Amino acid sequence: MTDLALASVTKTAQLVRERQISASELVTSALERIRQTDAELQAWETLDEEGALAQAGQADASVTSGEVLGPLHGVPVGVKDIIATAGIRTAMGSPIYDENVPTQDAAVVARLKGAGAIVLGKTVTVEFAMSCPPRTLNPWNREHTPGGSSSGSAVALASSHCPLTLGTQTAGSVIRPAAYNGVTGFKPTYGLVSRRGVFPVSWTLDTVGWMTRTVTDTAVVMDVLSGHDQTDSASVRPRQSGFAAGLAEAPNAPRLGIISGDIERTTSTEMQAHMFELIELLRQGGNWVELFDLPISYLHIRDANLAIQSTEAAEVHRRDFAERPDDYSPQARAKIETGNLIPATAYVQAQRLRRQFRRDIDESMTTLDALIMPAAAGPAPKDLTTTGDTTFYSPWTTAGLPAITIPTGISQNGMPIGVQLVGRGHDDSGLLRAARWVEERVGYTPKPPPLASVAG
Amino acid sequence: MTDLALASVTKTAQLVRERQISASELVTSALERIRQTDAELQAWETLDEEGALAQAGQADASVTSGEVLGPLHGVPVGVKDIIATAGIRTAMGSPIYDENVPTQDAAVVARLKGAGAIVLGKTVTVEFAMSCPPRTLNPWNREHTPGGSSSGSAVALASSHCPLTLGTQTAGSVIRPAAYNGVTGFKPTYGLVSRRGVFPVSWTLDTVGWMTRTVTDTAVVMDVLSGHDQTDSASVRPRQSGFAAGLAEAPNAPRLGIISGDIERTTSTEMQAHMFELIELLRQGGNWVELFDLPISYLHIRDANLAIQSTEAAEVHRRDFAERPDDYSPQARAKIETGNLIPATAYVQAQRLRRQFRRDIDESMTTLDALIMPAAAGPAPKDLTTTGDTTFYSPWTTAGLPAITIPTGISQNGMPIGVQLVGRGHDDSGLLRAARWVEERVGYTPKPPPLASVAG
Repeated sequence: MTDLALASVTKTAQLVRERQISASELVTSALERIRQTDAELQAWETLDEEGALAQAGQADASVTSGEVLGPLHGVPVGVKDIIATAGIRTAMGSPIYDENVPTQDAAVVARLKGAGAIVLGKTVTVEFAMSCPPRTLNPWNREHTPGGSSSGSAVALASSHCPLTLGTQTAGSVIRPAAYNGVTGFKPTYGLVSRRGVFPVSWTLDTVGWMTRTVTDTAVVMDVLSGHDQTDSASVRPRQSGFAAGLAEAPNAPRLGIISGDIERTTSTEMQAHMFELIELLRQGGNWVELFDLPISYLHIRDANLAIQSTEAAEVHRRDFAERPDDYSPQARAKIETGNLIPATAYVQAQRLRRQFRRDIDESMTTLDALIMPAAAGPAPKDLTTTGDTTFYSPWTTAGLPAITIPTGISQNGMPIGVQLVGRGHDDSGLLRAARWVEERVGYTPKPPPLASVAG
Repeated sequence: MTDLALASVTKTAQLVRERQISASELVTSALERIRQTDAELQAWETLDEEGALAQAGQADASVTSGEVLGPLHGVPVGVKDIIATAGIRTAMGSPIYDENVPTQDAAVVARLKGAGAIVLGKTVTVEFAMSCPPRTLNPWNREHTPGGSSSGSAVALASSHCPLTLGTQTAGSVIRPAAYNGVTGFKPTYGLVSRRGVFPVSWTLDTVGWMTRTVTDTAVVMDVLSGHDQTDSASVRPRQSGFAAGLAEAPNAPRLGIISGDIERTTSTEMQAHMFELIELLRQGGNWVELFDLPISYLHIRDANLAIQSTEAAEVHRRDFAERPDDYSPQARAKIETGNLIPATAYVQAQRLRRQFRRDIDESMTTLDALIMPAAAGPAPKDLTTTGDTTFYSPWTTAGLPAITIPTGISQNGMPIGVQLVGRGHDDSGLLRAARWVEERVGYTPKPPPLASVAG
């Protein structure tokens, strides 16, 4: 039972393929683990037990009849509740969509199902994937924020409910909750994964991402989810494929950059020590690690993200906010009202700054495979009035660059800490290889968190 | 002499290739024609006589030494004065840039030169390619506007100064002056021709276009100018090539659409009669002509163009306008001040409406090669306080669709009139084939205009 709860996507799919376990057993045990801890943790917004068991039955029938299996055959997954699921309530974390049941799956859900995955249900999202804290608890310590906006996805993964959950990131909404809960979280290069059927925060920034237990799992899912979709205005044709296969190529040690002065300037003493130890470990392992100077365009890139987010959010919510203003939280209201006050020239300045920053980073990173940095200033803050700050994520999301966090340790107060790696645009393969390398060097295996231990 | 003045790009290049005339003779005779009429017409902002003669000398040396000739070898051209030319003053029609001499050619100028063309100099642009009337006269009648903002390029072409001029279009700045002066004017699909080195009006709308005497010439130039440029954020990889060769394929009669009720609603009685005759002619020639219903998104598409233009122009001119407000015309000032007042949400609404309109047109045009419509409500208005209205061009430019005008007759008051054809996005080949077909059916050959007759 313990093994199953902690098994990776790859391992789970292998067990199903080799008939060592059935999809029905997997779903049943996942639902059992959820039942044990989720009344307290509140990672799930809606469970589709009946639908999941029916899908599992079909998956088992396929295995029996020897049908070709997708790479996720039988793997139970959770989907952030701003991502449309046909026939399953998708409420966007808002009373306005409380009874919304989509008739179509989002493109990513259709791709997951096409690869054999089984949707257990919907994970809690912060209201409209903005910044109002969720009801979800951090399984490491209920007094610390779980992060957001993909709070439920991170907590479900950390609590061993299932080995794969989907999230979305507009500033730091995948990487931050993943880091705060001690799981691997990934956002690909902007435009490589379709957002059709994903309720927008800000359509020029929103990126679908996901959480898993390992870098290999992340790459397997990237193979399933990446691809051009002409119905998504941001979608571009991927320049790479075979992300999982690419990990095996594992050539030389990746060339890593650390941002000059950034660790000292922005993180807790404990995180600084952790990072410097980790970098020393990598250096000894033969890694080339060099100092990276941030371009001047970095200075205002977070303001650019905010201006773009607020403007586009105001436009997305124009009708709903006019009709039902009282159904918005103070945080969402502030964002929309800010958006309505931004001049168009500020918005286009922000978009131009963003392109400049991306060009600057592209030019500066030509000799590097990835930047390596703390995944946050420290562990998840002991503060339930916030989902944490976006400092460590917003610049890279705004530039559309791929980013990944992996857990690398536990802080003195018992909370997970980790690193973030940021890759070159459209070189998601290079980033995943670098992350796999670091994961292996560090050799850290997270234990289940205290509040989810019933399930362990 | 008459033949040379009226020769097409294709014919001129052929004469040089076959050594029937030298590039130096071509440039000398072009400069002579300009001298005869341009003191009155004011089509040229800056002439580079010395540079052009030097280039011509080199072109002749190449011919003598049997070097491979580009398709424009020896062809004298004029370049709108917002397009950068290395070593030649590029003043943007503004006192602020009166002494601006770029060190680099714009991408399109480099491509023209690479194909063998000889830059005679710079043609008059309306101030910053906006809407303040220029000093240039319409060679058909000095009391009528020459149109704008590519005024000098249209008048130079119409006045037989040279067989090819470059312009730019943000709403109607190529097609309108071309139509008002009785020449062929073309703007390709947005993103197919680089704008590097072109002073922007509005970077999400600006498109380089050009004027010639024939559709074949237009296609020859499209072969030279189209291509991906990673330094232009809007640049995309063309899905087609061989535009000139494509004309020869000339398959079936093109399938043309006429917009329901549009001709009756928007044009003068004379233009209506002209259009209906022309359509009847095409029908008898075997053309399929059907009614085309505009999508609902058409209703506000011109407002979207204005919101986008004003916002982006305000951003482009931010510093110059803050430092030298008195050097702006009332028209430019109004546009910039309007831009500064537009809310960001209105701007993003405009950009979304635009994408919707493009999608709607894409869906409605699947069975058509081109829409055919009047090139304007009537001939160039007898009004020197305006460059004409953008009604007939703004929707198509905003959608990024390719468009072409060809002259088809002379109005009762002796001014040129013509048609416009609008193609499907990224099917510039289909549009050019349709235009070539119409040009041949109509069989109209424009005569030189009265004010340029000295040169005839």
